[in-house]
Amino acid sequence: MNPSESVLSSDIALQSRYPDVDTLTAHTLRFLAVDAVQKANSGHPGLPLGVADMVTTLWTHFLKINPLDPTWANRDRFVLSAGHGSALLYSLLHLWGQHYSLDDLRQFRQWGSVTPGHPEYDLKRGVEITSGPLGQGLASAVGLALAERWLAAYFNRPGYPVVDHFTYVLASDGDLMEGVSHEAASLAGCWKLGRLIVLYDDNRISIDGSTALSFTDDTAERFRAYHWHVQEVDGHDMNAISRALEAAQQESERPSILICKTHIGWGSPRQDSSKAHGEPLGVDDLRRTKEALGFPLEPAFYVPAAVREHLCAVEQRLDGQQMVWEGMFARYCADYPDLAAVWQDWQKGSLPAGWESCLPVFEEGKPLATRSASGKVLDAIFPHLPFLIGGSADLTPSNNTRAKDAADLLPPDYSGRYIHYGVREHAMGSIMNGLALHGMRPYGGTFLVFSDYMRPAIRMAALMKLPVVYVFTHDSIGLGEDGPTHQPVEHLTALRSIPNLVVVRPADANETCAAWRMALKRTDGPTALILTRQALPLITPTENPAARGAYVLADPQSGAEPQLTLLATGSEVSLALEAQKLLAAQGTAVRVVSMPSWELFDAQPVEYRRDVLPDGIPCLSIEAGMTFAWAHYVGRSGASLGLDHFGASAPYQVLYEKFGLTPENIASRAQQLLKELA
Amino acid sequence: MNPSESVLSSDIALQSRYPDVDTLTAHTLRFLAVDAVQKANSGHPGLPLGVADMVTTLWTHFLKINPLDPTWANRDRFVLSAGHGSALLYSLLHLWGQHYSLDDLRQFRQWGSVTPGHPEYDLKRGVEITSGPLGQGLASAVGLALAERWLAAYFNRPGYPVVDHFTYVLASDGDLMEGVSHEAASLAGCWKLGRLIVLYDDNRISIDGSTALSFTDDTAERFRAYHWHVQEVDGHDMNAISRALEAAQQESERPSILICKTHIGWGSPRQDSSKAHGEPLGVDDLRRTKEALGFPLEPAFYVPAAVREHLCAVEQRLDGQQMVWEGMFARYCADYPDLAAVWQDWQKGSLPAGWESCLPVFEEGKPLATRSASGKVLDAIFPHLPFLIGGSADLTPSNNTRAKDAADLLPPDYSGRYIHYGVREHAMGSIMNGLALHGMRPYGGTFLVFSDYMRPAIRMAALMKLPVVYVFTHDSIGLGEDGPTHQPVEHLTALRSIPNLVVVRPADANETCAAWRMALKRTDGPTALILTRQALPLITPTENPAARGAYVLADPQSGAEPQLTLLATGSEVSLALEAQKLLAAQGTAVRVVSMPSWELFDAQPVEYRRDVLPDGIPCLSIEAGMTFAWAHYVGRSGASLGLDHFGASAPYQVLYEKFGLTPENIASRAQQLLKELA
Repeated sequence: MNPSESVLSSDIALQSRYPDVDTLTAHTLRFLAVDAVQKANSGHPGLPLGVADMVTTLWTHFLKINPLDPTWANRDRFVLSAGHGSALLYSLLHLWGQHYSLDDLRQFRQWGSVTPGHPEYDLKRGVEITSGPLGQGLASAVGLALAERWLAAYFNRPGYPVVDHFTYVLASDGDLMEGVSHEAASLAGCWKLGRLIVLYDDNRISIDGSTALSFTDDTAERFRAYHWHVQEVDGHDMNAISRALEAAQQESERPSILICKTHIGWGSPRQDSSKAHGEPLGVDDLRRTKEALGFPLEPAFYVPAAVREHLCAVEQRLDGQQMVWEGMFARYCADYPDLAAVWQDWQKGSLPAGWESCLPVFEEGKPLATRSASGKVLDAIFPHLPFLIGGSADLTPSNNTRAKDAADLLPPDYSGRYIHYGVREHAMGSIMNGLALHGMRPYGGTFLVFSDYMRPAIRMAALMKLPVVYVFTHDSIGLGEDGPTHQPVEHLTALRSIPNLVVVRPADANETCAAWRMALKRTDGPTALILTRQALPLITPTENPAARGAYVLADPQSGAEPQLTLLATGSEVSLALEAQKLLAAQGTAVRVVSMPSWELFDAQPVEYRRDVLPDGIPCLSIEAGMTFAWAHYVGRSGASLGLDHFGASAPYQVLYEKFGLTPENIASRAQQLLKELA
Repeated sequence: MNPSESVLSSDIALQSRYPDVDTLTAHTLRFLAVDAVQKANSGHPGLPLGVADMVTTLWTHFLKINPLDPTWANRDRFVLSAGHGSALLYSLLHLWGQHYSLDDLRQFRQWGSVTPGHPEYDLKRGVEITSGPLGQGLASAVGLALAERWLAAYFNRPGYPVVDHFTYVLASDGDLMEGVSHEAASLAGCWKLGRLIVLYDDNRISIDGSTALSFTDDTAERFRAYHWHVQEVDGHDMNAISRALEAAQQESERPSILICKTHIGWGSPRQDSSKAHGEPLGVDDLRRTKEALGFPLEPAFYVPAAVREHLCAVEQRLDGQQMVWEGMFARYCADYPDLAAVWQDWQKGSLPAGWESCLPVFEEGKPLATRSASGKVLDAIFPHLPFLIGGSADLTPSNNTRAKDAADLLPPDYSGRYIHYGVREHAMGSIMNGLALHGMRPYGGTFLVFSDYMRPAIRMAALMKLPVVYVFTHDSIGLGEDGPTHQPVEHLTALRSIPNLVVVRPADANETCAAWRMALKRTDGPTALILTRQALPLITPTENPAARGAYVLADPQSGAEPQLTLLATGSEVSLALEAQKLLAAQGTAVRVVSMPSWELFDAQPVEYRRDVLPDGIPCLSIEAGMTFAWAHYVGRSGASLGLDHFGASAPYQVLYEKFGLTPENIASRAQQLLKELA
């Protein structure tokens, strides 16, 4: 036989063996994914083999997406929380809409390919979210589902359910072991997110072996405790899965979890073994698996004609669904032109014209904590930015995150724009990612020291370049009595080390205002605002160039050339200004540079950077935290004042004094440095 | 009346009003704590007022501690997970054993006092653990309880229950909202830690207001799902609490949680309000509270004589308990002298003499991943270090953390020394802190990128200076195909920013061996080992000075003075050696410095540091991660090669090539730098 005859005969044999095209589709998915893993000689075959029946049922009969238009606003969201199953997702998106070619699958995990080892947010190809770090997808899906309810409350009108979709998640044992799954699932239950449907691949195997080693939760009972709708089904019984999905869709008040009992590596010689999880099956076991299921050994990446035909019909049905919606939306635009205009803005992600004119002006001479200034900025802009949605991890009165006109987002009323996340920093971070993915502009507050609790979520925002804003208050020993457990010293450096994240530590209320402006205009990544608990004097102009990252705040009044630059951030800038006066009285001329953001400064043209920090003028940096990274600006010839150890519990003025962060000590260190360099 | 008469009459009035001395003790505790908060004008009155009845019952009638000897090995452990209630703990430790004087309470939250804002580990005064960041105490208590079971399995003999105590936790709403509580409670259930007893202060109020805003879990059902023993009691009914504690002690297989319904700020005008939580009551409300309970308004910090007398009796009873134990232990030492000798070593925290001679020697010329080298070190030393207890967050085969002779720690057999933590990095970190606090030497593995999930626990280890070892493998783009979600680029800088943490990134198997030696000898803080997935050539001597943090690995073979130093860590050191050869062929003499640890190098005498990195010789650093902090060593005149962006998915050799981490590119950058400086 020639190859095409062989394929034809394979097709006939397969159709006769699998009269049910869904089963054949599931097997096709299985082998596309497993072939990709084998070709790459790297990846995870166990999950695709185990969940193919679940996802085939979901995608063929339930998921409301349009393969021809993955960006349709009212599509169902599908989140592969178990991101190590990426080969399955690319295979699905090959079969549904050809967003990945077979060549793309052959390039799985290779340089320059569109099929990386874990899914990377790529909406045009149907990848809704970057996933892989366990728990993140599930928790972000809670944000997607919450956004859906908020947008429905905002846009829908009687007879016009323009926002009306489900959010589906495929989650693994690992997702449910991670703590963030507790935080997020607890909130989903509290928020009654009935349109969130989680398919849990309960295969009782993790990398270390049987889950009996470490994971003996009664997961059904656990989720019932969160007020979820729980069903247990055989994950290989498509009819049972269908019935459970129908019931889940019917349930409007409680999020649903389908606990799907599956077999990892289903159909392969490694079934039910941790050996199936994270390494290719190998040529022999792959062959045996295909033989056992009557699938042609060659060619690899084989798609039977019956599957193609069937999915073509599915595709047309799904395209038709969007057309119906488009028709409704056209009538909606006619009936509600104002809302339709807002919808367009929302889709573009643009902020309303003139919103910046609402930014507050701060009163000269009145000391204000930058957290309070941030609160006043929010008071002013909140009414003008309809998609701005705030919250705090149970520190609302401390973070000043609740704008004065904000209403709580709490069921049954989803129209509020203030979220009480509880003491759940991690879920807050992940949920904000989901909100941002659904077009909202989320911000959320906690103490800077607790940014550690949400770092995995911050990293995901940075990877996906989502415009999330973190409001991190209580930013140093300046919080005083709460002591070292609550005093960040390492966190500025730790946050600055994350690519794509912009960290801004404003020196006063005016820079805080500039920081918010910059953060909200930013569309290509997250921003962390670093704010004080303690009051600070107003020392910068209303129109300040904080958005450039650093600028000359004060050159010597004498007009003399500066002998030294004092380079400071946040609450230490006003100390530097005081030190400048002391030094001037001692006959030493120094420049004071305010540097609210390293990342923004480093992005300036080299000429600007040299103007601010000229070569040949030594620098002394002042920041109430770890100093080692300041060498980036002060070099070996400069010096740094900071805190290279944990803090202590005492009123903050005492701490600043004891730890040498005073104008007097800055001046003295400056003189010493000049002597060393002389 | 003169003051002493006034006190006497107050005492008489109080005794007649409160014939039950326990109630009077609870009120005394309440007011000691609230007076301390008021005096400091900072702190948390709500919790002490709410839980005083629970803790009085526990401490008076159940807790087996000896106020006269807080270090008694077999004492019950009491963990105040809700660390913001520190004033309560200091008040307890004033009444039980006078570890804090009334003057100490008056100095609450002041500079130099022993009564900081949150409890700081201080065993001599009875503070078992630093707490405050929510969830940490509860999760670490699981480690304490696990250590108790392990030590009992190791030391106890028939008739000699030398290790035989309970671990009690006082936890708050916030503790249970945090994700780490899920991870740790799930493990406690899996491990059947029947001697862990949690008193949950269920007051339904958090900082943002009612827990109805954000926390609607059925906590009883949730903990039953983890296979805990659950009881619900009135937290102000001392008899009910007693009965529940008795039942909890009787339950040997399941950890216990007492869900104690309480009123935050009990007895004050702010009862049941979030206003009671985190700010002083104020003079007026404090007065009203004392009046309502018939407590004397003056003096503040008042302890009725009846309470003192009663606790004196309690103290004698508790001291007697230890004496009985000491008697048993003396007989144990006679019957089991070998075990008694090990016990002494364990108490001293010293490693067995000669253990270092067991360290492996690696074969020249055989490339080995440093994770594999680490595995071989563990294979070699594990049998010789009885208190070394390892584990992994479900990445055992990848982290190479399971020594070949290790047995799993799994009930009913607690004698194993290998722990399967599941996909729970955060709980692993916190549990290791508990194990270390109980004298074990824990290490635990995960991928470096997932160190983010456990940062809050790492910080606690650093604060408490606990000798925990983190085995962070897959330390760069060198992990290859898994892609940017799994490739750390920022984590080295982020970890280096934590005070007291030593980060070691060895260049090969021999440096890995030196790193383990150093980590295990360290007694004053945690160590993070940063290890590769990919194989590396053996390039350093068996006896290398890695413990000094950095050293000259290779000076120019020509004997010429180096024109430049190549400064590298880990997998990049061998690239630097190759580059040195290329440069030598080009007539450029360079030095190669291997720098496994910044912290260790910075701790060397300045002379040593100057010998290794002499002034005047420019430096080029090479490390596959963010470069900005390298200015700490290379200054403004040097340069850095690294990765200032996220990675990509491809085989690792391709990534190193594409991202310019090759000997050729290092040599070329070195030449360019010399030209720039010429």
